[in-house]
Amino acid sequence: MADNNKKMVDAITSMEEDFAKWYTDVVIKADLVDYSGVKGCMVIKPYGYAIWELIQKQLDERFKELGHENVYMPMFIPESLLQKEKDHVEGFAPEVAWVTHGGSEPLQERLCVRPTSETLFCEHYANAVHSWRDLPKLYNQWCSVVRWEKTTRPFLRTREFLWQEGHTIHETAEEAVKETEQMLEVYADFCENVLNMPVVKGRKTESDKFAGAEATYAIEALMHDGKALQAGTSHYFGDGFARAFGIQFADRENKLQYVHQTSWGVTTRLIGAIIMSHGDNNGLVLPPKVAPTQVVVIPIAMHKPGVREKAEELVSRLKKCFRVKADYSDNSPGWKFSEYEMKGVPLRLEIGPKDIENNQCVLVRRDNREKTFVSLDDLENEVARLLDAVGQGLYDKAKANMENRTYRCTSIDEIKENLSAHGDGFVEAMWCGEEACEDKVKELTGVGSRCIPFAQEQLSDVCVCCGKPAKHMVMWGVAY
Amino acid sequence: MADNNKKMVDAITSMEEDFAKWYTDVVIKADLVDYSGVKGCMVIKPYGYAIWELIQKQLDERFKELGHENVYMPMFIPESLLQKEKDHVEGFAPEVAWVTHGGSEPLQERLCVRPTSETLFCEHYANAVHSWRDLPKLYNQWCSVVRWEKTTRPFLRTREFLWQEGHTIHETAEEAVKETEQMLEVYADFCENVLNMPVVKGRKTESDKFAGAEATYAIEALMHDGKALQAGTSHYFGDGFARAFGIQFADRENKLQYVHQTSWGVTTRLIGAIIMSHGDNNGLVLPPKVAPTQVVVIPIAMHKPGVREKAEELVSRLKKCFRVKADYSDNSPGWKFSEYEMKGVPLRLEIGPKDIENNQCVLVRRDNREKTFVSLDDLENEVARLLDAVGQGLYDKAKANMENRTYRCTSIDEIKENLSAHGDGFVEAMWCGEEACEDKVKELTGVGSRCIPFAQEQLSDVCVCCGKPAKHMVMWGVAY
Repeated sequence: MADNNKKMVDAITSMEEDFAKWYTDVVIKADLVDYSGVKGCMVIKPYGYAIWELIQKQLDERFKELGHENVYMPMFIPESLLQKEKDHVEGFAPEVAWVTHGGSEPLQERLCVRPTSETLFCEHYANAVHSWRDLPKLYNQWCSVVRWEKTTRPFLRTREFLWQEGHTIHETAEEAVKETEQMLEVYADFCENVLNMPVVKGRKTESDKFAGAEATYAIEALMHDGKALQAGTSHYFGDGFARAFGIQFADRENKLQYVHQTSWGVTTRLIGAIIMSHGDNNGLVLPPKVAPTQVVVIPIAMHKPGVREKAEELVSRLKKCFRVKADYSDNSPGWKFSEYEMKGVPLRLEIGPKDIENNQCVLVRRDNREKTFVSLDDLENEVARLLDAVGQGLYDKAKANMENRTYRCTSIDEIKENLSAHGDGFVEAMWCGEEACEDKVKELTGVGSRCIPFAQEQLSDVCVCCGKPAKHMVMWGVAY
Repeated sequence: MADNNKKMVDAITSMEEDFAKWYTDVVIKADLVDYSGVKGCMVIKPYGYAIWELIQKQLDERFKELGHENVYMPMFIPESLLQKEKDHVEGFAPEVAWVTHGGSEPLQERLCVRPTSETLFCEHYANAVHSWRDLPKLYNQWCSVVRWEKTTRPFLRTREFLWQEGHTIHETAEEAVKETEQMLEVYADFCENVLNMPVVKGRKTESDKFAGAEATYAIEALMHDGKALQAGTSHYFGDGFARAFGIQFADRENKLQYVHQTSWGVTTRLIGAIIMSHGDNNGLVLPPKVAPTQVVVIPIAMHKPGVREKAEELVSRLKKCFRVKADYSDNSPGWKFSEYEMKGVPLRLEIGPKDIENNQCVLVRRDNREKTFVSLDDLENEVARLLDAVGQGLYDKAKANMENRTYRCTSIDEIKENLSAHGDGFVEAMWCGEEACEDKVKELTGVGSRCIPFAQEQLSDVCVCCGKPAKHMVMWGVAY
């Protein structure tokens, strides 16, 4: 058993040795993705895709509860349509894939594969909206998008990725701002309560906004290695796109007005965030609410009479409330333990002849390996309790990591010292609001501005860089 | 009320006048799609997409119950990969969209946007499969695909469409054939029991097979206008793709073997099939199991005290078991009746002051406009009963249409006479198996071979065309 365990663990690089290598080892060994022959694109395997389906389902329910409706727009954008909003085309044109031929015929106008669908939604809204009675439109789309990235890594940055993109239009600016904020809250709540991943909510600086947005809000999470990962964004567009695309409506006084617009999205990148927030040197650790298998049942001494039957009985009991599977293969229990640890299954249930004698089983938590002997009479309650405990445990650990690695600094030297003493992390420091200082902080310390947190503190009165009066506390970090 | 009704009905062309125009009127007026600026691509609006989500959910459950798992493959296929299987590339290359540039750089090898993903699945399987223990692989993918069609119509034929594509590999040919047949049965059962649409199951002739398949099975449905619509296909590939892509495994005797393969799919075309199977001159008629709204509650004399409150109470009761909405707008009841008839809502619930006095409401079926007075004490049961009755009613009507329009013929003249006397429909006639006769029947009568039905009958001993001995009874028709 010990040998088997060792063999599996040896198969992945340790985090401390090489975090990037550890990450790619985990995505492959945990059976999440495979590389494909198409450079920069990934094959999402059943286990990885099942996690995405659970994310989709739970997010989609939240969207729908708030009145959003799903639609599907074309995957192609004519070049002339992409060019309608100046900032937008400048932001995206350099990284799109261009379709130039249909069959053997060259196209009259080339089409890009959508990198995001603002332009398509705008074109549709311009046709569909006439009166204030048609507003708001609260549309969302689940689809894949393409951005021609140079360097790619599974889930974190790929040329094609899966996402949802919400696109809403409203009668007033206030309503649109409220929607932008609301959706950021939905994402933050989802990350914290479903993915057990604490996040910082904030606004992007001007230089870091979405192409065409008036304001971009984001949630930022801190990975195991102290790097920041942007986990979701919500944009307020004002009426910029509406003016470019002519989306007008007759208001309550029958005057023509432009709509006020938002968009918001999260991607398969969230799976990368889960891996780097919760994983360990034994592999993946999955938040119970998105784990395709929440409990794996492993029979011990399966050749002994009654063991397999008992395991089957427990599986059929647990199936009613949980996502459960059993492993009846010929592999040794130790091999199986390692296998499901690698796959991050939150709870392992061991059942052997002695347990059966005592009307009990053993439940082992993935996050801290704590063992609990549980009476079979109380099995469902104990499984539910322990799954909650795993979720809470993951959150607490990630929260502690974030707090330990958040450095409040009032000088450039202090930033440097903290980063060199404790490694990468979130740096909180005051900023005057000038892009030149933003760039200089990055140049001098290596950390860029991640966001201006909603939760502001006055760490000092002056900019950490130029010493002029400070406008905001910025959270800085090294971004994925 | 009558006026309003008339106004709405006038808005669509009648089926008898112009079936094609009736169809496009319905897809637009029922709010299913909008045209987009991208030629041949459609915008699927919330109401249309909600139907697709209900189709997806119920099909996906059936797939998963049979052990299939969802995955996601890249949307691009390198040209060299597409060319690996000769028949396949010949079938698809003329109708694919080609990506030639990423950002401003020309690609070293051009990529097509997937028209179907056999080649990508094969490439993955060639990497992933080593031993008979790795088999079967039962993968499915929900995605969009692109085929550069010249003539397009919403749902029926568009350059981009949504679908699912199952791709499975097996140890033995028998197992793969069984899977091919099983999935056709799943589709047929789904069409009959969920979409209330009778279908004929059969095998395609050689000339009509999928590019690269050994056998293609299909289900064919008959539309209101007597034309045939292929509603789903299931392909048996033998080991052709496996040989082209080198998908080999060590069998139970440790000998290298090629896998045996299948693929199967249905598309958003099913929505077109629903429209043309069940729709009428008042608009869409939706099968209750895929209706986004199953019951619409319309308050009568809403200004009278207690009416709106009672309507709200009924909605909150019905919400527990059904997809229900209410219309409290200022529009007249008559306008609302027409509106929800156009949208095909299976049941309308009317509640007014008199009904409240009598502790009752009125339920009106969309399919036959039958009115039932229902005691509010028994509301849930009656709604459930009437939804079932609508589903059965739709099926019976479509089945009768199919039977009335199936012409059994033993000569070319008889085919011509039937078609000219009764209009388009399914023609059943014997065939010798030669492609020349297949072509000639089409040339002489206008109907092409749809499939060789599983349910065979010996209508005569000789081919309807050449008079030589007959091999199969073929079902012929004009295809969408």
